[in-house]
Amino acid sequence: MRATTIHAPYDLRVEDVPDPVIKDSTDVVVRVLRACVCGSDLWAYRGESARQPGQRIGHEFLGIVEEAGADVTGFASGDLVVAPFVWSDGTCDYCAEGLHTSCPRGGFWGSVGSDGGQGEAVRVPFADGTLVKLPADAASDDHLLTALLALSDVLGTGHHAALGAGVRKGSTVAVVGDGAVGLCGVLAAKRLGADRIIALGRHTARTDIARAFGATDVVAERGVAAEAAVRELTGGQGAHAVIEAVGTEQSMRTAVAITRDGGSIGYVGVPHGSGTGVDLSVMFDRNIALRGGVAPVRAYIPELLPDVLDGTIDPSPVFDLTVGLDGVPGGYRAMDERTALKVLVKP
Amino acid sequence: MRATTIHAPYDLRVEDVPDPVIKDSTDVVVRVLRACVCGSDLWAYRGESARQPGQRIGHEFLGIVEEAGADVTGFASGDLVVAPFVWSDGTCDYCAEGLHTSCPRGGFWGSVGSDGGQGEAVRVPFADGTLVKLPADAASDDHLLTALLALSDVLGTGHHAALGAGVRKGSTVAVVGDGAVGLCGVLAAKRLGADRIIALGRHTARTDIARAFGATDVVAERGVAAEAAVRELTGGQGAHAVIEAVGTEQSMRTAVAITRDGGSIGYVGVPHGSGTGVDLSVMFDRNIALRGGVAPVRAYIPELLPDVLDGTIDPSPVFDLTVGLDGVPGGYRAMDERTALKVLVKP
Repeated sequence: MRATTIHAPYDLRVEDVPDPVIKDSTDVVVRVLRACVCGSDLWAYRGESARQPGQRIGHEFLGIVEEAGADVTGFASGDLVVAPFVWSDGTCDYCAEGLHTSCPRGGFWGSVGSDGGQGEAVRVPFADGTLVKLPADAASDDHLLTALLALSDVLGTGHHAALGAGVRKGSTVAVVGDGAVGLCGVLAAKRLGADRIIALGRHTARTDIARAFGATDVVAERGVAAEAAVRELTGGQGAHAVIEAVGTEQSMRTAVAITRDGGSIGYVGVPHGSGTGVDLSVMFDRNIALRGGVAPVRAYIPELLPDVLDGTIDPSPVFDLTVGLDGVPGGYRAMDERTALKVLVKP
Repeated sequence: MRATTIHAPYDLRVEDVPDPVIKDSTDVVVRVLRACVCGSDLWAYRGESARQPGQRIGHEFLGIVEEAGADVTGFASGDLVVAPFVWSDGTCDYCAEGLHTSCPRGGFWGSVGSDGGQGEAVRVPFADGTLVKLPADAASDDHLLTALLALSDVLGTGHHAALGAGVRKGSTVAVVGDGAVGLCGVLAAKRLGADRIIALGRHTARTDIARAFGATDVVAERGVAAEAAVRELTGGQGAHAVIEAVGTEQSMRTAVAITRDGGSIGYVGVPHGSGTGVDLSVMFDRNIALRGGVAPVRAYIPELLPDVLDGTIDPSPVFDLTVGLDGVPGGYRAMDERTALKVLVKP
């Protein structure tokens, strides 16, 4: 089959690789219908996260089960399924608690020795603990299929951020980051009942999506000016719930600065760079909490799925460029140059 | 009257100062019956926190109302009262939410221009918003009076840490820090229903108090060995709720290392030193939350007071040295040299 591999920074290739086969009796093989490129894939693309030459890439996909191992009970050939961005055994303490990302037998698509989502097919370990079944008729609904793909990462990650930020009915929320995760944070905050949602972002194409997703205010300023703007919008106090969806020192600094005393930052931006931006003295004086991390999206799919299916929420606008498998390297380039927000892949 | 002043690092004096008088109609003057020395006072003592020469010091006290301003409605001359370690107006948004430490009109005892607790009397601003009345007959109960003094800071701070750490019925808790706040964290965790409480500490006198307060295990090791010991006690996973009651880079590192994935660190150690110990990448991967800060103890006194009055909890063992006002400098010396845990002052 063909799949995307990474050989060096900025050197992505779509090449022939061995067809995935059942190795363990709990595996299934999924034929990929939809995959996409994540903002966090760009850290590997840019060389900020190390990869071995030839490693697979891509951790978001949905597709059709092609073959199921002997011990798989929940899935059969022909099932439409979505995969969260980590696999997990579904049986350990952490999986039972809904923290599938800490499953000791779990792992990330595209890690050494595993398949990546940006290919024609994927071997899925611990299928019963990992995958979630989708209604079969969704397979023929192009728009819905795209919306459902967001369940594999960005929608659940935005939801995790909103939970970490403590969003509830009536909350005032600020969202740092206008990427797909930040935008899904807006959508998740709206879904959880936020009254006011302030999106920080300068790109009109993105802030227009933020408004469509429920943002009531947009702050185009950056740094200190952005902090002042949020404070002005919130009676000088800041937002009780702040979503940090970037992961840089500067974005975390902004998040701390715009959080109301006693509020919480839900952070889901993968931390990168040398500084954290976590000013503990300020957070101490103002009782600002920091909650979040890698999102256990597997735990959230059952809750979010019905709302996507019935159209209550539609994350599909975050995908603004569609490519075939051969177009994946160009898709990365577009996201790296910020001419695309999030690239949908139809292998 | 006489009060403790700080003139330079290690230069504390007990000297004559002007008698406190009602300045605003919402003030009262409190004659101090009991005060004490806080671990955080040592940062000023050691010169790690700057002070102006002659500044007052001490932020924990209880006593008798001597005089009340015209607009004070809740207190009259002769009332026995306890003061939280900050004053607050009791009327702002933050006070209404129970975050009195963020009151815009609030302040700290011993800040420039205010009285400190380690003296014969204190002018209390916003008395109605700040003080809490105690039963009059407690004034003649020496032991109870000492226990009630802990409501001014350490008991409420330990409670704040336990809440930040997410302690609930059945929790496994680890407590970093064997000072009075850490020990009160043990007491608070026990009160909130923790099943297992692991106290980290090497000083038997202190860990004996921890055991009396409810600690089920004591870890005497430090650093990496302490982390390994806590992991061994918790089936390799760490504690779901961790109280950080020191405030150094090392103590926070230890707290992060011993927190179970998906758990929370309740931090109340005043951050000091150059590094934070907050390893955001580790916290991200393991979904560890950080919650806490300066404790709004005023909010907690009404909840904790009945339990102290009826003896359900007795924090008084944290006071292991009693001095008169003239003994305050010696008391600081004893705490600085760790020959005393917490010094009680009877002016």
